[in-house]
Amino acid sequence: MSPRKSANRTESSLGDLGEDRVLAQITARLPRNNSVILGPGDDCALVRLGAGQKLLVLKTDCVVEGVHFTGAAKPAAVGWKAMARPLSDFAAMSALPETALVTLIAPAETTAAWVRQLYRGLNKAAAAFGVAIVGGETSRTTGALAISVSMSGVVEADRWVGRAGGKPGDELFVTGRLGGSLGGRHLSFTPRVAESRWLTENATVSAMMDLSDGLGTDLPRLAAASRVDFEVDEAALPRHHGCSIEQAISDGEDYELLFAVPAAEAAELQRRWHRKFGKLALTRIGRLTRKAKSGVRKIPCGYVHFR
Amino acid sequence: MSPRKSANRTESSLGDLGEDRVLAQITARLPRNNSVILGPGDDCALVRLGAGQKLLVLKTDCVVEGVHFTGAAKPAAVGWKAMARPLSDFAAMSALPETALVTLIAPAETTAAWVRQLYRGLNKAAAAFGVAIVGGETSRTTGALAISVSMSGVVEADRWVGRAGGKPGDELFVTGRLGGSLGGRHLSFTPRVAESRWLTENATVSAMMDLSDGLGTDLPRLAAASRVDFEVDEAALPRHHGCSIEQAISDGEDYELLFAVPAAEAAELQRRWHRKFGKLALTRIGRLTRKAKSGVRKIPCGYVHFR
Repeated sequence: MSPRKSANRTESSLGDLGEDRVLAQITARLPRNNSVILGPGDDCALVRLGAGQKLLVLKTDCVVEGVHFTGAAKPAAVGWKAMARPLSDFAAMSALPETALVTLIAPAETTAAWVRQLYRGLNKAAAAFGVAIVGGETSRTTGALAISVSMSGVVEADRWVGRAGGKPGDELFVTGRLGGSLGGRHLSFTPRVAESRWLTENATVSAMMDLSDGLGTDLPRLAAASRVDFEVDEAALPRHHGCSIEQAISDGEDYELLFAVPAAEAAELQRRWHRKFGKLALTRIGRLTRKAKSGVRKIPCGYVHFR
Repeated sequence: MSPRKSANRTESSLGDLGEDRVLAQITARLPRNNSVILGPGDDCALVRLGAGQKLLVLKTDCVVEGVHFTGAAKPAAVGWKAMARPLSDFAAMSALPETALVTLIAPAETTAAWVRQLYRGLNKAAAAFGVAIVGGETSRTTGALAISVSMSGVVEADRWVGRAGGKPGDELFVTGRLGGSLGGRHLSFTPRVAESRWLTENATVSAMMDLSDGLGTDLPRLAAASRVDFEVDEAALPRHHGCSIEQAISDGEDYELLFAVPAAEAAELQRRWHRKFGKLALTRIGRLTRKAKSGVRKIPCGYVHFR
């Protein structure tokens, strides 16, 4: 059985079906065991660790040449991004990263200098967040270069935040600014680990995720997981210099936090955030609303990405 | 900076230098933290988990089309192998696997049926060892299909076995039979997790690893980690039907256990093993010896692979 679709055969490929549909079927049948608190579908997996008060947090993420970076990208920046993406998922759950495993799949003609620079970036990002790189794997390939980083860490059993806890009436916030990441920021962003830990210490965060695919794709995911709808005040969206509202909604790879807190806490949270984090913006962008019974959700604007 | 070596440039590629040399430099500079008990270089990483008596065990491994399997391989067998490889590393340390993350890097033309069968194999291997698949990642690629599995689990702090504890005089054993794996067994082998757990319950295992690259490559690694030499009785090597001594030493992908125990325990261990595991062979293949002071190690035979 060849993995590839033959030109004259009727079978469906991942490209035809969309891999989300295929993976949804597959995800429903994955083996589980008693240690699993949160399996596939959120930003990280959560696993019980025996008797302790902390949960094991697990996430893997990969960057592939031609998809997540070009051959022209600086290898140290590619390494930074490969490590920073799972770190951003840890931030999304208010978890503390501790260790990483690095898998490098590379053609034989990859230069040693490129690999050394790649690791400079991996090491820099890991060290910046106190993460130890404890192992990994290398394989040859005849195809595109790929780097996969698997991260593990911990979170207090009563502190982690998933996507599913948002309530109608909660105010929605984003950290930082959105849009224009592909101009370069997608290779150099700062995962919001410290900010996320501060948030769960200082507010009742009901749902949270990191913005990797863009607000227009990610906010509906958070709302769906929480079984609510949402309203967004588009004029309020914090945009990077020169970016349109459309770009702030659709560009993706922002790696900022999107989260919900009860409305009663919103004003005080913003005051305290500003005192703590100074220039880093925290912006109220809208709210979660009751899910329309008819199943027809109000779309707050014409952007197709919110449909 | 392009990852690829240009035809007319003088820089070194992974293929020129050998990736071991490049990775040895890189490994020496990886960030560490206080949680790390055992970092890169053994079969798995070991990480301290707060106050408990168990250690977190971490391993990642990948299979790449054209390197670890061909396009003609049955996808369920590819899935089995992708999961069984890190399971074998857990066996090598006498650790208990608990959860896995699966990364699938696949071209858009990969058929949905192939991916479903792949997951049948991944799920079957995971379920056979009580492992939950708790998440993963999918990415497109323009190149070869690759599957990476990151596994986590636990081991008692006083029970794990690395490669470094072998002593001169210890007897060397291998489980099962060696050689000829590429005829098909490399896609369907059984990781020796149960056997390894029994061994650390019933013997003083001083050093252990799984045979992935072949006895001729792996035994020198165990000896080097333990700072000892070794003697092998080649005529005693347990071979698969039709395999030569040369094949048993060199073919690789056996995924059997290689381990050392004090000579005083050897005979009793073999009796008890036979009662417990019946047909599965346990064979004494040689012993660890004192490292020659001159730095010239006795080679027990002419096979170049032991040099």
